[in-house]
Amino acid sequence: MSKPTNKNVTIHIKRLMHNIEQLGKIGLNKDGGIDRVLCSDTDLEARNWISRYWEQVFLKKTRVDPIANLWMDLEGDRNLPAIVMGSHHDAVPCGGRFDGALGVLMATEIVETLKDRRIRLRHPLSLVSFTGEEPNPFNISTVGSKVIAGRLTKEDLHKYSHRETKELLGDAIKRMGGNLDLAENALINKKNVAAFLECHIEQGDKLDKSGLAIATVTKITGIYREKITVSGEANHAGTTMMNSRKDAYLAACEYSLAIEKAVKNLNSDEATATVGFVKVEPNEANIISGKTTLIMDMRISDKVRKAGILHKLDREAAIIEGQRKVTIQREVILDQECIPMSDTVINAFDHGAVCIGEPAAHLVSMAGHDAANISMITRTGMIFVKSVNGKSHCKEELSYPEDIEKAANAMLQALLYLDKELDGNDII
Amino acid sequence: MSKPTNKNVTIHIKRLMHNIEQLGKIGLNKDGGIDRVLCSDTDLEARNWISRYWEQVFLKKTRVDPIANLWMDLEGDRNLPAIVMGSHHDAVPCGGRFDGALGVLMATEIVETLKDRRIRLRHPLSLVSFTGEEPNPFNISTVGSKVIAGRLTKEDLHKYSHRETKELLGDAIKRMGGNLDLAENALINKKNVAAFLECHIEQGDKLDKSGLAIATVTKITGIYREKITVSGEANHAGTTMMNSRKDAYLAACEYSLAIEKAVKNLNSDEATATVGFVKVEPNEANIISGKTTLIMDMRISDKVRKAGILHKLDREAAIIEGQRKVTIQREVILDQECIPMSDTVINAFDHGAVCIGEPAAHLVSMAGHDAANISMITRTGMIFVKSVNGKSHCKEELSYPEDIEKAANAMLQALLYLDKELDGNDII
Repeated sequence: MSKPTNKNVTIHIKRLMHNIEQLGKIGLNKDGGIDRVLCSDTDLEARNWISRYWEQVFLKKTRVDPIANLWMDLEGDRNLPAIVMGSHHDAVPCGGRFDGALGVLMATEIVETLKDRRIRLRHPLSLVSFTGEEPNPFNISTVGSKVIAGRLTKEDLHKYSHRETKELLGDAIKRMGGNLDLAENALINKKNVAAFLECHIEQGDKLDKSGLAIATVTKITGIYREKITVSGEANHAGTTMMNSRKDAYLAACEYSLAIEKAVKNLNSDEATATVGFVKVEPNEANIISGKTTLIMDMRISDKVRKAGILHKLDREAAIIEGQRKVTIQREVILDQECIPMSDTVINAFDHGAVCIGEPAAHLVSMAGHDAANISMITRTGMIFVKSVNGKSHCKEELSYPEDIEKAANAMLQALLYLDKELDGNDII
Repeated sequence: MSKPTNKNVTIHIKRLMHNIEQLGKIGLNKDGGIDRVLCSDTDLEARNWISRYWEQVFLKKTRVDPIANLWMDLEGDRNLPAIVMGSHHDAVPCGGRFDGALGVLMATEIVETLKDRRIRLRHPLSLVSFTGEEPNPFNISTVGSKVIAGRLTKEDLHKYSHRETKELLGDAIKRMGGNLDLAENALINKKNVAAFLECHIEQGDKLDKSGLAIATVTKITGIYREKITVSGEANHAGTTMMNSRKDAYLAACEYSLAIEKAVKNLNSDEATATVGFVKVEPNEANIISGKTTLIMDMRISDKVRKAGILHKLDREAAIIEGQRKVTIQREVILDQECIPMSDTVINAFDHGAVCIGEPAAHLVSMAGHDAANISMITRTGMIFVKSVNGKSHCKEELSYPEDIEKAANAMLQALLYLDKELDGNDII
């Protein structure tokens, strides 16, 4: 019998699924969704579960950085920068068991597998579970990765507070074991990190529709948001004749449909636009709306196409203004560039997929991720695993064990490949 | 010099405008609008002002009925049922000085003029200022007239409370001098009332556009309201492709525009439809709406046309459901019939207009009024006075003194006509 090569090493899917199930009990509500929003009691409970698990398996203390990201740092054979793997453990209200948790637990399973098999890598390895990736009541998502990438200062952080309880973010982070006064110490020195790998559920239905289990992410979409304020004239719903109206809401309806039409006409799977936030004023059944506010969220990686859409919307707004005697004021509130993933890590994931007999499929991530921030400090890449029916951020969120197993084994092979190829034998 | 006939009697416009100005100071806010919502401190202040004025002029105590309507009851020469005139003194938040107040003060001016001229009528006269005609935080409009018309029982009334302070309507009405436990005593005996006359601003722009000062109201429009619930699927704004969406908000936009189109196509000045209330859920920038709720307010007097519109909307809803894979559920929440005014009072107002040299113009009231309730107990009619630019429920609400004077003199002549013609010499 020949000595097994690392190519034969595979993760323990039952253990991984069991861990997903265990962590998925934390925050489980009566409707079957997960409530584990940033700095909630269940966030803390999830942190304690992860820390305890890591400490039991790796016999080392979990490190909590100033923004309360959880870290498990393990030594390598050589004095090299670390390869980091992980994701986040928080969830949207009534969210699913896989978004975030899967990435943390898969990274954990991969390192646990290496430990079981006594495979030591050249690079040190770090596991991470990021603080507050999801939208949350503090109005700041991917906060853990933003801070370590230097995208937020101590001063920025001290401005945030909980929209209902008014608790300061600093106080809440302290409850999670962090300390915002030391936020600058959380910043990662580029020299200490070799690469970051994250597995995440796709959240869309492209893999499900194409019959694929996994795909390598090539880039993370840009997100562009406009706040659109339509101003008309509030007036009596009975006495104001149909032709004398300046109905801000109906103008907003036309504009919302124009946004949809413009983006649909691109006929692209890599372009979306959504009006998800709508505020009608005064919002009374018997008063014509004098003011309606919308937020448009547009995700288009291609800059030329994005400019084309915005140009078309300029014209649509002008037409509606003229026809409905309203004004449409547009303000850019977010303009996040499309983030390409590292070619090195893309190659490693492709290699991993091929190693396990899967095609090296590529996808653009249409959701934002911690990886977008981490890409500013190191070679970063992601692998997506199929979401059944493309559902996420809901209790129906599901990925099958056979797909998760493929993703984990591909990621394990990607890790082994990077460990061999990076630093000293650099392929960049 | 011949003795003046009653046809030469005219009201004192300077006194009336002065009173409008005085009452308009109560609740005047820094933006120039009037805050005098049902059972507010300024509502009470306005009541005190009106009571005091009546008592000083007519040397009689103001009567406050159990729902806190204010009454000034004056004897006639004969033991006949009373002719009642008045309107309401409350206002929508940041409303105008004329809506309601004009009707109370004009009725007052007419009776004060008769008193000055020592003209005694056959009929007793009552002045009334109704409680809570406008939409208010207790969610019950025209409450004063509803109660005296027997449209609300004591039990119904005890269910209402202030949407913010939670104060019970009963406690609030007690602060205004009423007593809901005795609500049934407020009910008017039909035998005791001969007619009800109300002057109100038009609130629309038909008079202003046609260059007329006044018009007789022929009917008060029916109001029909549907709560429309559009159910789609809440989903991620980035990862859900444009063709895989079930966007409840965009379906609601299409339906709202279809409502507008259907009613506009009637090309009628007596048909309106409005979507003034909109609730988008979950209302987050990065989530496609899974549920959007609308309230449609439709005012069409013609039953056949109304049925035609509803039939058209059935088809529109089915088309949108099919194209957007959503469901549109519609629930009738109000279906108030069109209320015709009394022919006797219409004739009296027409006569009044002709007496002062104005054309006997007719209008349908597209807003609801206390007169709609009072029409259930007695011959009821209204006269409209021009609203400059059709504005109402706002600080820009305005009617010119010359138009108000015409309305008051026409109404005075209508009163004299009815006093002569009704009861004993009945023209019905």
